[in-house]
Amino acid sequence: MNYGERSLKMHEEKRGKIAVASKVTVKNRDDLSLAYTPGVAEPCKKIHEDKENVYKYTAKGNLVAVVTDGTAVLGLGDIGPEAAMPVMEGKAILFKDFADVDAFPICLDTKDVDEIVKAVKFIAPTFGGINLEDIGAPRCFEIEERLKKELDIPVFHDDQHGTAIVVVAGIINALKVVNKKIEETIIVVNGAGAAGVAITKMLNNMNPKDVLLCDRQGILYPGSPENNEYKEAMAQVTNKDKRKGKLEEAMKGADIFIGVSASNVVTEEMVRTMNQDAIIFGMANPVPEIMPDLALKAGAKVVGSGRSDFPNQINNILAFPGVFRGALDVRASEINEEMKLAAAQGIASIISEEELRADYVIPDPFDKRVAGRVAQAVAKAARETGVAKK
Amino acid sequence: MNYGERSLKMHEEKRGKIAVASKVTVKNRDDLSLAYTPGVAEPCKKIHEDKENVYKYTAKGNLVAVVTDGTAVLGLGDIGPEAAMPVMEGKAILFKDFADVDAFPICLDTKDVDEIVKAVKFIAPTFGGINLEDIGAPRCFEIEERLKKELDIPVFHDDQHGTAIVVVAGIINALKVVNKKIEETIIVVNGAGAAGVAITKMLNNMNPKDVLLCDRQGILYPGSPENNEYKEAMAQVTNKDKRKGKLEEAMKGADIFIGVSASNVVTEEMVRTMNQDAIIFGMANPVPEIMPDLALKAGAKVVGSGRSDFPNQINNILAFPGVFRGALDVRASEINEEMKLAAAQGIASIISEEELRADYVIPDPFDKRVAGRVAQAVAKAARETGVAKK
Repeated sequence: MNYGERSLKMHEEKRGKIAVASKVTVKNRDDLSLAYTPGVAEPCKKIHEDKENVYKYTAKGNLVAVVTDGTAVLGLGDIGPEAAMPVMEGKAILFKDFADVDAFPICLDTKDVDEIVKAVKFIAPTFGGINLEDIGAPRCFEIEERLKKELDIPVFHDDQHGTAIVVVAGIINALKVVNKKIEETIIVVNGAGAAGVAITKMLNNMNPKDVLLCDRQGILYPGSPENNEYKEAMAQVTNKDKRKGKLEEAMKGADIFIGVSASNVVTEEMVRTMNQDAIIFGMANPVPEIMPDLALKAGAKVVGSGRSDFPNQINNILAFPGVFRGALDVRASEINEEMKLAAAQGIASIISEEELRADYVIPDPFDKRVAGRVAQAVAKAARETGVAKK
Repeated sequence: MNYGERSLKMHEEKRGKIAVASKVTVKNRDDLSLAYTPGVAEPCKKIHEDKENVYKYTAKGNLVAVVTDGTAVLGLGDIGPEAAMPVMEGKAILFKDFADVDAFPICLDTKDVDEIVKAVKFIAPTFGGINLEDIGAPRCFEIEERLKKELDIPVFHDDQHGTAIVVVAGIINALKVVNKKIEETIIVVNGAGAAGVAITKMLNNMNPKDVLLCDRQGILYPGSPENNEYKEAMAQVTNKDKRKGKLEEAMKGADIFIGVSASNVVTEEMVRTMNQDAIIFGMANPVPEIMPDLALKAGAKVVGSGRSDFPNQINNILAFPGVFRGALDVRASEINEEMKLAAAQGIASIISEEELRADYVIPDPFDKRVAGRVAQAVAKAARETGVAKK
């Protein structure tokens, strides 16, 4: 049986992947009087007196909602909230296994931005954090922006920032391998969806020579009639020389290619036009923008992809469990740029200078040191930027 | 330490009472490929093909949302969604312990009926059932009615129907003890909130001689200027002789008193004016409408209360776990009147004719046979009324 068939069988046998567990036993009247009436009135009163006590007496502080509208699920697209459920349950168990975060899927039966924002705000009292997942661009940008503004708990769109953090971690280490400074590099990001925009923003903050963000039409430039609000904003802060042209044009002389786009859009010829010691992270699934062996053959120095059967697997699992663990541990009110960069540095730091090599710039997804290292780095950055409430 | 102090300590030590558990292990790449990408795409596709498959491949079929707006929590009133969380978590662990239902608290940050209805509809794809909890009357009636109409999963307001089911179970057995038929009885229900209305409706369906529903003003009668929409509707179907007067007047000649109102509103003198072999269930918390020993002294034959230190404790825990277990087991689209009556009969049937006596008409809350018996009865009634989808 292939993965699909085995996965189907496993999901049917277990009837999904999550359950709700009790942290206390209720075996007799005494237990019941503590966990429920009459004793439970006491924590209720304390929270009513001071809302902050909800973190002291309830599970809120460790609960994260994994929220989707089912519009951009894996490579499957808009399959609806019910069909998104297996992915959200999967995310929930990864949160639990990798960082002991209690995450719960919330699959929303609406695609309306206002309704999604309202629904998440209404359910927020239960949760210590909101992980947005598989919500299509550009709606995901507005939803995240509004929720960040209106809620006092961390809101994090993993498809954007989780991916960006792992990519940046890989770039930090890859640049050491090729002995370049980011200030000297031209970076091409192909794909201007949720991940592409977030990766571009995060790299841009690190002050590279230039970033060229491309979509299907080619390099984004200011004033392009194709630009929506978000693409125009990105065009304003990238592409310093206002270059125009297809991806092929963008690749010429570039140091780094990051693909969050489609399979096989990068040719060996295009790699050959890049600057020497090129870094290529092609993350289209299951077939990357260019297969890792072909990229290496064409002269790239460091190659990563989303695949587990090649070195340097770029997997969000390296980021989101530790990011939320760290944010929840210090009760951060948000996950800011400094915390994301700290997370990327935390991931990168797992690989020592001695271990570092072209085929090992990103830690293994099952490296159990990662989540803890990320959590520490994120918590520290939260404290330093004044967003930690404890 | 008293219950309140001990409860506070326990809640703080455990940081709440619920956690999310994983039903599968993710220890290596193979596990990850089944629980998450790429394998997880397969159940997603199957559900996208046929939405019903969500019950086959996800946890939905065993997940119940415990939804509140925090407006009528215990006897504490409108304390808000955060302060309601300890009660909702308590409910969740009781669902788990008593019937292996995975229940999750959803504390809503809105009191607006339209917004609550929308929020619950939007989050419904995750859940196999909705348990409404501690939402104030009369808003709870409209919210439940609308959700029942608009959702195809069971919606059950426990403060109404859970209480009504247990009361009816007690009445079924108490009538055997006093050797009366319900058709011969006059029933006084004091308290026209969520529980009082539901109890009255359920008893009314059993064809008693009459039911008098009282609120603070006294007996409800049609056309009273005090009636809101819901009270007027109740006045239309109760009080056949259009009696007016205070609770004291209602009690004269009544066979059964059911209190879901306030402490000490029933005097010994009022009990003495009732018909012989009176049945009294006074459920005000923590002090009942009349203390059980005083009611017995004044001549009542069967007495129940909400208290665990007197016989015949009327506790919702006897109903809700089994009701949802049964409904989920046959994937019922609703919890209808027949299912509720079946639940009451199931609870009552735990006590055999031989065991039955005045101080044992309601099973012990920890009688582990109850939930299973209720679930069976509810599932059977769901099948017989054509609302079971499997």
